[in-house]
Amino acid sequence: MRSFFKVKTAEDIFESLRDIKPLEAESVTITVALSRILARDVISSEDLPGFQRSTMDGYALAAKDSFGASENLPTPLNIVGEVRMGEIPRFGLHRGECARISTGGMLPKGADAVVMVEYSQMVEDGIVEISRPVSPLENVILPDDDVKRRQVVLRKGTLLRPQDLGILAGLGISVVDVFSKPRAAIISTGEEIVDISQKPRVGQMRDINSYTLGGLCIKSGVEPLYLGIVRDRFEDLKLLIEKGISQADVVLLSGGSSVGVKDFTLDAFLSLDGVEMLAHGVSISPGKPTIIARKGNKTLWGLPGHPVSAMIIFDVFLRYLFGRLSGLSNLTEYNDHAIEAELDRNIESATGREDYIRVKLTHMEGKWLATPILGKSGLISTMVEADGIIKIGMNNEGLYKGEMVKVRLF
Amino acid sequence: MRSFFKVKTAEDIFESLRDIKPLEAESVTITVALSRILARDVISSEDLPGFQRSTMDGYALAAKDSFGASENLPTPLNIVGEVRMGEIPRFGLHRGECARISTGGMLPKGADAVVMVEYSQMVEDGIVEISRPVSPLENVILPDDDVKRRQVVLRKGTLLRPQDLGILAGLGISVVDVFSKPRAAIISTGEEIVDISQKPRVGQMRDINSYTLGGLCIKSGVEPLYLGIVRDRFEDLKLLIEKGISQADVVLLSGGSSVGVKDFTLDAFLSLDGVEMLAHGVSISPGKPTIIARKGNKTLWGLPGHPVSAMIIFDVFLRYLFGRLSGLSNLTEYNDHAIEAELDRNIESATGREDYIRVKLTHMEGKWLATPILGKSGLISTMVEADGIIKIGMNNEGLYKGEMVKVRLF
Repeated sequence: MRSFFKVKTAEDIFESLRDIKPLEAESVTITVALSRILARDVISSEDLPGFQRSTMDGYALAAKDSFGASENLPTPLNIVGEVRMGEIPRFGLHRGECARISTGGMLPKGADAVVMVEYSQMVEDGIVEISRPVSPLENVILPDDDVKRRQVVLRKGTLLRPQDLGILAGLGISVVDVFSKPRAAIISTGEEIVDISQKPRVGQMRDINSYTLGGLCIKSGVEPLYLGIVRDRFEDLKLLIEKGISQADVVLLSGGSSVGVKDFTLDAFLSLDGVEMLAHGVSISPGKPTIIARKGNKTLWGLPGHPVSAMIIFDVFLRYLFGRLSGLSNLTEYNDHAIEAELDRNIESATGREDYIRVKLTHMEGKWLATPILGKSGLISTMVEADGIIKIGMNNEGLYKGEMVKVRLF
Repeated sequence: MRSFFKVKTAEDIFESLRDIKPLEAESVTITVALSRILARDVISSEDLPGFQRSTMDGYALAAKDSFGASENLPTPLNIVGEVRMGEIPRFGLHRGECARISTGGMLPKGADAVVMVEYSQMVEDGIVEISRPVSPLENVILPDDDVKRRQVVLRKGTLLRPQDLGILAGLGISVVDVFSKPRAAIISTGEEIVDISQKPRVGQMRDINSYTLGGLCIKSGVEPLYLGIVRDRFEDLKLLIEKGISQADVVLLSGGSSVGVKDFTLDAFLSLDGVEMLAHGVSISPGKPTIIARKGNKTLWGLPGHPVSAMIIFDVFLRYLFGRLSGLSNLTEYNDHAIEAELDRNIESATGREDYIRVKLTHMEGKWLATPILGKSGLISTMVEADGIIKIGMNNEGLYKGEMVKVRLF
């Protein structure tokens, strides 16, 4: 078992994650539903606003009574009342009549438009002159202008934004069904790794990956479970992976995936019942020594120990995976936060793999310049210096200075 | 007092918010520090990694021992030991000697490079042949390659990203000083507004703005305090505003800012001790009927009742204000999430004001098309339909079909 070594392309891996199913739905109140993903279509049971509303402060009137009005020859109208906010007007309008109305007020019977207060002038008590004509429905919202009864307001799979919470509130929907948040168990491995509360001896390193991966999880709407550090002992590793897979939807190990003699990650994955290997190595740089296994709808990831490599693998595959687990319908949303920038030097790249290059952005004369950051993937400082990453495709031998590139902010 | 009416430009308002000071610092552990903003420079007290590390699995050696090695004429070396992870090697290398080493292992004395296992071949027990030369320091990280002692690792004002948490972890910094989260008191006003738990009568509307504004706050790293709905009674409004200003850094009222007879927002603001008016009206559409006042480092906002207008004002000014209160040094970060798109029809705009246009994005033949969404600013559904907004500047009479525009995702 140990000997097979199957390097996969990014496409292969996306393909093998395509049938990952979203998690169960749960009900949450809309005050905590921001950035959660709808598990069902929301259908309105009513019209919104439900009555004819004014969008302006002014006078409600029959539009035809204003036809011909001008600054030189304003039309006088009798004010027969004032619309009280939140109430049905108890009066109607006849020809030559109008009523004071505020923004959001309900139009009285006989009115089909509102003239703005700016185009009116009180001439005597009870009489106002209108200096501009309005057309029917001008400055008016119809009962079903915002939402129609039985309309699908929001679709299953929508990432809820502030305005989506607003429309739910407007319809009186205070609780909503969303997909459960994915949970990720995070484990660091390696004899040389110590907890950040410890002073490392020479030859040891503090655990960096638990924190970068935890941060990436939170940013992706995923709850991280920090399971700590395990030394390179098979039984310990296996127990912790079992704990992870029982408590979480995804297990993220880091550090145990290079071909070192003490790396038991692969064996530990394979020792679990019903586990299927998806990849042993991916054609991505940095990040090649990644092991991926799957057990039903759960996946196990042996990420590289190098902090930069582990972060790149997260960005390329795990954001996608978490999007699927979260039930997000538009998975390209995850790739939208990109800036166009001009590359300020040549970059070479090997064909047959995807290269991810860290870049620093500078704003110069109205455009963004992207400067590649060279540096080993073991150096977290290169990621701190970077503003984003650019991708060089499989069949590309490199990019030239002056080319426009898409920088994904990171 | 009631009569003065000062419409301000966006520039005026930014200018009057420029001296808003960041909030006090507080200490948080790095597992909850994501997206918080550093209140002090972080200076390293040590070198990272602190020792010479291998970045590969392979053999540590003196580079000069590999010079001349090739596939046809590999160089044999004696394996004199294996570097144990996390420990100082107890042996050194002499000429012609090498040691097994894993990624992250410490180089033994006498070694200055690592040859990858892929370029080696065991020929007999204790002897390995190297088929490729390495240069000094190849596949090696120096003791201070990642971070140098006394280096400023992260600057005050930095928005903490996953990699920033990683470098803090690497340096053993588990608690960090960040600026406190701003708090925003949210109040909806209007006789016609009812809580979302109530069934509105004809003429009434459920409270939408508390939820859109609350969502925008959370998205901006701000804690919303929902103070509920107040009817248009001066004393009630004043009491709630006083409550808001005592508990929060910013008070967001919505609904009471049009020039209606029952709008007491301005009076209520002016009735507070030490309040200075910043604007009564802003030259922005939608969003013109906005009242802004300031009391020391706190600000009071009378936002329009129309949901779209209130959201636009938040996006233009309040994100900026919350950036200042949060101590963010790079305030342009707030404007980075934009996509270049081609406008698919003409848009007219009035000069003398900034226009914000809702647009829907469609991906077509490798580029984004932006379609303006026409519709009254009282309709929250137009914002639900929109993917983003574009800005048309003060002195611009409009945009033409085919022009490239920046769409801020919203």
